[in-house]
Amino acid sequence: MTAHTSKVTIHMAASLDFFIARKDGSVSWLETSDVYENGASFEDAEELVKTIDCYVMGSRTYEDALRLGWPYGDVPVLVLTSRSLPADRDNVEFYSGDLRELVGGRLRPRYRNIWVVGGAMVAREFIRLGLVDDIRISIIPILLGDGTPFVDHVGIEQALHLKVVTAFRNGIVELWYELRKTA
Amino acid sequence: MTAHTSKVTIHMAASLDFFIARKDGSVSWLETSDVYENGASFEDAEELVKTIDCYVMGSRTYEDALRLGWPYGDVPVLVLTSRSLPADRDNVEFYSGDLRELVGGRLRPRYRNIWVVGGAMVAREFIRLGLVDDIRISIIPILLGDGTPFVDHVGIEQALHLKVVTAFRNGIVELWYELRKTA
Repeated sequence: MTAHTSKVTIHMAASLDFFIARKDGSVSWLETSDVYENGASFEDAEELVKTIDCYVMGSRTYEDALRLGWPYGDVPVLVLTSRSLPADRDNVEFYSGDLRELVGGRLRPRYRNIWVVGGAMVAREFIRLGLVDDIRISIIPILLGDGTPFVDHVGIEQALHLKVVTAFRNGIVELWYELRKTA
Repeated sequence: MTAHTSKVTIHMAASLDFFIARKDGSVSWLETSDVYENGASFEDAEELVKTIDCYVMGSRTYEDALRLGWPYGDVPVLVLTSRSLPADRDNVEFYSGDLRELVGGRLRPRYRNIWVVGGAMVAREFIRLGLVDDIRISIIPILLGDGTPFVDHVGIEQALHLKVVTAFRNGIVELWYELRKTA
């Protein structure tokens, strides 16, 4: 039963007013200068990243990664897009078909720890289609005031179960939830 | 120096997609059925509430409180409105003038622990005018999917300092921030 051994996690960083990007696309706000004395070391978070064996993202998140410095190494990356985008990496694949088929038919049988890293539209579609097991939000200690909202208007209510709360030394708080299945 | 002995705190509850109200105004989603084993008791939160000596809110938050069961007891309540609203309590006062004057001239000299409890427009105006010391957000373990956003589009960036993170046994996480003054 591959569905039980693989997990799809939405992971995104957001400001306290829950924007995931500035209007101009700049990302310097992600570098917090805050100090939270009792926080965990950010190295713990880096250990976690090593367990991810597949990333899924929208085209703009992909373009940001190309522009800002590729953070995904050689881990397989699925980019959801119908546009024609530059592909100079062997581990990047573009996909424009049915999301349920992609996740159930191709990703879950092959990967254990699949991370959906944005943007807002991709997160919304994954939640709406019931393809998500967990949501992990890293809240950056800033109010951006304006920008691109995190999952806007999914249109359905979804109960969550709080799994873990981690406050890091740089003032970032990670909230980790499991989506609760309705009976 | 009264400005140093009084504190203005924005306190609001929000879903993980950062809505503070359903479209239809119903509030049953605030009653979480989640269980977070290692969480703090919610009684700790109730102790805190006893230290609040003034509430400030917008007219719709006031009307909700009247409709849903008045939670503010006999603590002084300032309702920001230019509308004519029912007032059947001695501790409720309506105000439609300048916010800076209200906070600096009347509230800070008189009260130590002033809580601004919503809604989104009131929170935005307080932040925009620099009248806020702390923000405390209680994140309810649910995605609402749609509703009234928490502080929409303040229009200015504001760095925060993480003070305290508290995860409660009912799955609610309270994030407590201080607004960082820019030099």
